[in-house]
Amino acid sequence: MKLLIVGGVAGGASAAARARRLSEDAEIVVFERGPDVSFANCGLPYYIGGEITERKKLIVTTPELLRSRFQLDVRTRSSVEAIDRTAKKIRVRDLESGREYEEAYDKLILATGAAPFRPSIPGIDLPGIFTLRNLHDTDQIKARVDHDVKQAVLLGGGFISLELAENFVRRGIATTVVEKNGQILTPFDKEMTTPIVQELAARGVTILLDQFAESFEPSADGLTVCLNSGQRLSAQLVILGVGVRPENKLAIDAGLEVGPRGGIQVNSYLQTTDPNIYAVGDAIEVTDFVSGNLTQVPLAGPANRQGRIAADNVFGRSMTYRGTQGTAILGVFDKTAAITGASEKVLRRDQRPFRKIYVHPTHHAGYYPGAEAMTLKLLFDPTTGQVLGAQAVGGVGIDKRIDVLSVAIQAGMTVFDLEEMELSYAPQYGSAKDPVNMAGFVASGLLRGDHPQVDVEAVLATPAVEQPLLLDVRTPQEFATGHIPGAMSMPVDELRSRLGELPRHRMIATYCQVGQRGYLATRVLLQSGYSAANVGGGFKTYRLFHPSN
Amino acid sequence: MKLLIVGGVAGGASAAARARRLSEDAEIVVFERGPDVSFANCGLPYYIGGEITERKKLIVTTPELLRSRFQLDVRTRSSVEAIDRTAKKIRVRDLESGREYEEAYDKLILATGAAPFRPSIPGIDLPGIFTLRNLHDTDQIKARVDHDVKQAVLLGGGFISLELAENFVRRGIATTVVEKNGQILTPFDKEMTTPIVQELAARGVTILLDQFAESFEPSADGLTVCLNSGQRLSAQLVILGVGVRPENKLAIDAGLEVGPRGGIQVNSYLQTTDPNIYAVGDAIEVTDFVSGNLTQVPLAGPANRQGRIAADNVFGRSMTYRGTQGTAILGVFDKTAAITGASEKVLRRDQRPFRKIYVHPTHHAGYYPGAEAMTLKLLFDPTTGQVLGAQAVGGVGIDKRIDVLSVAIQAGMTVFDLEEMELSYAPQYGSAKDPVNMAGFVASGLLRGDHPQVDVEAVLATPAVEQPLLLDVRTPQEFATGHIPGAMSMPVDELRSRLGELPRHRMIATYCQVGQRGYLATRVLLQSGYSAANVGGGFKTYRLFHPSN
Repeated sequence: MKLLIVGGVAGGASAAARARRLSEDAEIVVFERGPDVSFANCGLPYYIGGEITERKKLIVTTPELLRSRFQLDVRTRSSVEAIDRTAKKIRVRDLESGREYEEAYDKLILATGAAPFRPSIPGIDLPGIFTLRNLHDTDQIKARVDHDVKQAVLLGGGFISLELAENFVRRGIATTVVEKNGQILTPFDKEMTTPIVQELAARGVTILLDQFAESFEPSADGLTVCLNSGQRLSAQLVILGVGVRPENKLAIDAGLEVGPRGGIQVNSYLQTTDPNIYAVGDAIEVTDFVSGNLTQVPLAGPANRQGRIAADNVFGRSMTYRGTQGTAILGVFDKTAAITGASEKVLRRDQRPFRKIYVHPTHHAGYYPGAEAMTLKLLFDPTTGQVLGAQAVGGVGIDKRIDVLSVAIQAGMTVFDLEEMELSYAPQYGSAKDPVNMAGFVASGLLRGDHPQVDVEAVLATPAVEQPLLLDVRTPQEFATGHIPGAMSMPVDELRSRLGELPRHRMIATYCQVGQRGYLATRVLLQSGYSAANVGGGFKTYRLFHPSN
Repeated sequence: MKLLIVGGVAGGASAAARARRLSEDAEIVVFERGPDVSFANCGLPYYIGGEITERKKLIVTTPELLRSRFQLDVRTRSSVEAIDRTAKKIRVRDLESGREYEEAYDKLILATGAAPFRPSIPGIDLPGIFTLRNLHDTDQIKARVDHDVKQAVLLGGGFISLELAENFVRRGIATTVVEKNGQILTPFDKEMTTPIVQELAARGVTILLDQFAESFEPSADGLTVCLNSGQRLSAQLVILGVGVRPENKLAIDAGLEVGPRGGIQVNSYLQTTDPNIYAVGDAIEVTDFVSGNLTQVPLAGPANRQGRIAADNVFGRSMTYRGTQGTAILGVFDKTAAITGASEKVLRRDQRPFRKIYVHPTHHAGYYPGAEAMTLKLLFDPTTGQVLGAQAVGGVGIDKRIDVLSVAIQAGMTVFDLEEMELSYAPQYGSAKDPVNMAGFVASGLLRGDHPQVDVEAVLATPAVEQPLLLDVRTPQEFATGHIPGAMSMPVDELRSRLGELPRHRMIATYCQVGQRGYLATRVLLQSGYSAANVGGGFKTYRLFHPSN
């Protein structure tokens, strides 16, 4: 068996190591265009920011170790130029010497990755404009930052841009994020990004939404970024974080099929349309675990697992990849946002029926010092209760709840299962009713009909004549510090004695701070013959949609 | 509907609040012997230690709030003395006035809890000897600690004792834990407690195993605790943490069935042997989710959920309790230990076939600052791979992995599912291959036959003539700092060239630090015609069993 692997890093290096463990005899060659065969992509922003102090920490595995320990023939600075599928060989260019040569294969694994997109706009090649993909990019950006950067512009409001924003601020750089969409972090639903936007703003990061760069101009002290709005931003450093594109040229030239967004097509064995060629990682199209749709999700975890699976199949196992849930997490300063499964906007786009709830618990028992607030949004099937997706934002403990819910999605569990989850509880770690249990209670109550809920945005969008009465059941003090416009105040503890003040034939939408008192109020009203529903997640959810007022 | 609830706190208070949400009309009375109807049991040690500074934080809900918000008739300082099942009424004693009266019910929920066990040994009633169950106990203990305690003895090495040990040390008290068994934290397998024992020792806590108190004697400055070993310990404060017993007298007197360990028997609807009487919380016998055995697990999370379920059933729903996995967590100083599902010793006791693996990953990417070591032990079915139990010990991130595995157990997932879990990864939170994935890889490799593993304890227990050759494949430097007695050193990177030095017809047990290089070495040996297996978890697992050498 002669196995050639094009590309190292997560997918390629995992495949190579796995292949060797499966076969001592196989001839395994890894081709990598750059000088590094395996580095910590996800750590690059933190090395630039100085959180990771030693560059060598970013090197996961050296070519030397892969050679000595795994007997891999690792060829760095080697570009694979073409695949001859009929002859089963590839053409390789040694980037040092310029020499070209052929290499035959029995099986080929493509782990070519995805390249940051560079839009073709005037000035794009000016010095000071970078993308961040590898150690070489990192070194260049860090050299600039170490030298003298007063202002930086990050184009695109995705994960890497926001991680860089944090690290630039740490380095004392005035940082602006420019996002062409109406929200940052587009995998998330917009309201769930509010706490992140607020955190960035509090740390001095400027966020410009609905804007994009039209051109770059040189200036006395660097560059001017010219936005579509007419706004002009001075910067000594610009990072393009406007998405990645699968590196598919090799595949396309070889006649392999690629999807509409450019990802190399593979079956569940990660086999391309040529059974002797596998493909893994950011270069491929994958199935969305929840929707079954084809998608592209450039994430390190899936790439690692795909590498293993492809190697298994190369050596005659029959392993399948289940698809990607898109579990992702972002830390910026003291805030964390994470997501797994389908978002509300994806469900709407797919016209898939769903219901949603919000809860706003603390990450551990409130009576123990240091409890941090979180918001957890859960999306689920209205009929079966199956969990379709979850998003959480807050401080500590976000990763845990999203991981728990990621497993629930993979297991096909329902919101009724979330009620029963037995999660670890001591006051430093959680609550007797964990946030995941709470989400299960609220969602199950909704589906069982015990806890009717309305979306605050739907209420506010209702024409005035049909609009429910918004009933604020918090204390007068809470009401005074801010409430939903048009709401009437009636504390929950007075509700039973003041029922007569409420209209008999108008829908009443109760709300409190997070939804708990509103739920009780709804129960009281319903059992007293009123028509009522609770504003899901209460005033805190309203504030996610309306942070400014 | 007239619903009486005996006992507040987790189970009783949850049931009462749920009942009110289900019915505005029901008459709901809660009887509580103490003055507090709902307090944070799990926070008591941290109030004594000063981590929680305000006593009022321990009050979860006041009787006043339950009255005003939930229209509950809350009667504190009220002891329920007897149940007349035929007449469907109870006899109540008002502990303030001494007055006795009867109260009729349609349905009754027993949430009587469990009382700390007080062994009948000489001197047990001397001043300075306490149990810790409620706020009254807490106040008494705290008053002593605030006044003057130089030495404390904790009898029993369970969760509450060890939490108290931490808090006593924080208060400058010389603390000794006395445990009658051969290990602390008996729900865990002994080797998994080693890092906790080491942490306690490093913080100055003395742990005495295989010992128990035979008597207490008064002394000039407090007490002398006389142990079975003859050892005598001076103390000004003794806490009895030697287990709890279900408060079942009321149930037994009423002719309700209790199990062999005293827990009130309930069906899956949490109904006792009288269909009008439900029971929840620490007082009941529950089904172990993994084994199906009946057991008693005094934990706040299950009690809360049981309260809800019982209330649902009282009001005509049909909700069932799934059983308890025994998910539990302990923090002591900077270390955490957590468990879910079956332990190895329980599986052995039940003679249930199982396999086990150990992994020793870091809690997040090693290249990011602050990565902390953890040990994760996984128990699973040898045929199906179904996850049966998990234990983890380390610093940060223990709760997350045990929670993820708790969900996996509840979903009936296998070790092959763990390989595919898509957990959140950014370097501050996890790794591209999360510890749970790693456990899945190692366990799946074992079951697929790719990664044969031997238990270090089994190897060492093998008679010398049959004993495998222990092959240490770490570097000579690592070998020099400590190795398994009798092992031969051969670094993995030299293995292929030095195969000739190894015996052809003797089993070879390879090992490295955590198992990864040993796994590769095993693969090399197997494919070269040797008989080989990897010592699961490597030298780090050996050290859990043999911490001293």
